[in-house]
Amino acid sequence: MRTRPLKVALLGCGVVGSEVARIMTTHADDLTARIGAPVELAGVAVRRPDRVRVGIDPALITTDATALVKRGDIDVVVEVIGGIEPARTLITTAFEHGASVVSANKALLAQDGAALHKAAEDHGEDLYYEAAVAGAIPLIRPLRESLAGDKVNRVLGIVNGTTNFILDKMDSSGAGYQEALDEATALGYAEADPTADVEGFDAAAKAAILAGIAFHTRVRLDDVYREGMTEVTAADFASARQMGCTIKLLAICERAADGESVTARVHPAMIPLSHPLASVREAYNAVFVESEAAGRLMFYGPGAGGAPTASAVLGDLVAVCRNKLNGSNGPGESAYTRLPVSPMGEVVTRYHISLDVADKPGVLAQVATVFAEHGVSIDTVRQSGKDGEASLVVVTHRASDASLTGTVEALRKLDTVRGVASIMRVEGE
Amino acid sequence: MRTRPLKVALLGCGVVGSEVARIMTTHADDLTARIGAPVELAGVAVRRPDRVRVGIDPALITTDATALVKRGDIDVVVEVIGGIEPARTLITTAFEHGASVVSANKALLAQDGAALHKAAEDHGEDLYYEAAVAGAIPLIRPLRESLAGDKVNRVLGIVNGTTNFILDKMDSSGAGYQEALDEATALGYAEADPTADVEGFDAAAKAAILAGIAFHTRVRLDDVYREGMTEVTAADFASARQMGCTIKLLAICERAADGESVTARVHPAMIPLSHPLASVREAYNAVFVESEAAGRLMFYGPGAGGAPTASAVLGDLVAVCRNKLNGSNGPGESAYTRLPVSPMGEVVTRYHISLDVADKPGVLAQVATVFAEHGVSIDTVRQSGKDGEASLVVVTHRASDASLTGTVEALRKLDTVRGVASIMRVEGE
Repeated sequence: MRTRPLKVALLGCGVVGSEVARIMTTHADDLTARIGAPVELAGVAVRRPDRVRVGIDPALITTDATALVKRGDIDVVVEVIGGIEPARTLITTAFEHGASVVSANKALLAQDGAALHKAAEDHGEDLYYEAAVAGAIPLIRPLRESLAGDKVNRVLGIVNGTTNFILDKMDSSGAGYQEALDEATALGYAEADPTADVEGFDAAAKAAILAGIAFHTRVRLDDVYREGMTEVTAADFASARQMGCTIKLLAICERAADGESVTARVHPAMIPLSHPLASVREAYNAVFVESEAAGRLMFYGPGAGGAPTASAVLGDLVAVCRNKLNGSNGPGESAYTRLPVSPMGEVVTRYHISLDVADKPGVLAQVATVFAEHGVSIDTVRQSGKDGEASLVVVTHRASDASLTGTVEALRKLDTVRGVASIMRVEGE
Repeated sequence: MRTRPLKVALLGCGVVGSEVARIMTTHADDLTARIGAPVELAGVAVRRPDRVRVGIDPALITTDATALVKRGDIDVVVEVIGGIEPARTLITTAFEHGASVVSANKALLAQDGAALHKAAEDHGEDLYYEAAVAGAIPLIRPLRESLAGDKVNRVLGIVNGTTNFILDKMDSSGAGYQEALDEATALGYAEADPTADVEGFDAAAKAAILAGIAFHTRVRLDDVYREGMTEVTAADFASARQMGCTIKLLAICERAADGESVTARVHPAMIPLSHPLASVREAYNAVFVESEAAGRLMFYGPGAGGAPTASAVLGDLVAVCRNKLNGSNGPGESAYTRLPVSPMGEVVTRYHISLDVADKPGVLAQVATVFAEHGVSIDTVRQSGKDGEASLVVVTHRASDASLTGTVEALRKLDTVRGVASIMRVEGE
């Protein structure tokens, strides 16, 4: 066994970084045995050097992250700062100075994954980022290694714990969105500014990463259709229950039926209670992967939090250190299929539409005609009325999003349709 | 990209082998792109050369597996024969002749994993076997790579599809064991001789492999406590339901509370309906992994079948081929903790015991005294009686298996205890 330790620079020492440092210290012997050489924390770059950091030698703390990654003796840089800059420049600098990188940075990878992979390859370094998607759940490695001999057709998952916590609360307690969000904030599941979570930006970044790996093509954040879950109401949950469904914020990556393109999207959707994703509670994450040979696989676990994310970071750290010792590299970017990403209009799925309509004869016939004219086939209709007002709930068969959009636009123009109360996709069947 | 193809020898061309060959042919371009070089089926060793094998060049077929692995130009041997011999000798011979090995052979790995890993290492070759446990479900790779920086404390899973199918039938239809087995056989879920499945041998082999990887120690098949599920009755399911439980055949690998030893066992057990494993239906497999930092992870999917198992084999094939091209090796055996495997008597869990007792005053006091004398604390007791006979159902708090065994022996000696109708462990809480 080699005795010169592998040197690790840690960029960021917040919730995740401090756990990484802690485990590197407390489990040093295990890491040494598993890597085949000792691994040493050589420096920790932070923004606030005065903060007390239990268990970390103060001599390792620096505010100069750039100098740390440029030191020249660093073997692996662990980047848990998040955000685009300075993370991007630091990672690139690390490659230039002979370090491989383990990152948990979903936003950066979803935006600049291709360029970062190229920089890693140009310098013969590794770029690993299991922690960027679904925290501790092994997902990147299974997709890019275990299923490397298979053909993935679909990835369907709950990849944001904050929104799953909120939706689960709404479902189980009948609470409205704001009330559930307040509870999530009070319990630390939602940040003070929850926009990235509730508007689906976080999930969309993960969808971009997953789609790229699953389909061996490039998918950027901008390619991902995104709808947040702030407009999901208690009434939507009631409608979902009537259909034997619940509502989840899903990230869905699909290969088109003809195999010539892919789609990636994030939006709230109804899924049957019998679907395994329906029973994913609280802030847990779970991802379904459907592939040609393996069939349906599901991966479930804590999608966030310091220790779970640190577990994923450290798994990558062991792999990258082993590669360093072997003088080899792990799998780089695999984008050889060059499949284009189709716009949302080409996505084909089912829809649940609630309409407020006039309570008089002939309304259903009018509405049904509009659906037919747009080529959207109706599966079921439920009509209920009181006091001259009525509501009409239509569930469609599979149709393209463009057809559905056209249908809804036409419905809004009907005199007898007072309003479109909600439109929600139905998935997981 | 290198143009000389990597040569693969396929040993066995049954349900799994024929799928491996099919996918290697139909997805050749994908495999080439993912590996970085073409991969070529160089020979297929079979027992019955006359059988028609669609899509496989007859010139590749041979009955001489030994000559095939000795050819000297083979880069990777895929062993899907199963059983101990000739598989063991063929794998060892493959290493000696410069080939890495991908195997789906759980029985062999559970018995001789250490020696095979050593042979691979001695010759600088890889030994991969994702397909040996839980078919298509990525489990070996996540455990030995993704969680390489974490500390696994428990693996709890349904790793045999046949028995899960039978138990699921018994649960959902109220059928007895034999009736459910007959249905499983008719549908092809059980083999003509179901012994390996229903007596737990198959699951025990998988438990040995999982425990060894999870705890970085050596666990052999003989170390695994094993109880089959042939004696589970409809009455047991009724009892389970009264407790809000169902019954599953579980493989359970645990680190002792003091961290100084491990246990591995396979037996039927009651688990709460709220536990995610309770809802694993039909022939699906699912494995829970509890680790220090990552928390609770679950992996779910088809645990057997030609295509799913082939998916796992091909994922390994891609990894092994990439290592060959890199001149590197994947992770070998990791058994550095040398943790001993404790006997079943030291396992600590909860128990559900059904006793047939005389219906007269004082019986409960007698029974409770026996439990107390053996240090087994009672959680709940349910008494029901008719016609001078009564039954007593006792659910204990956590106790060692040795204490429970002592308790049951003493109970059998009581005049008032007519018989011990069933003893079942309660897990997953």
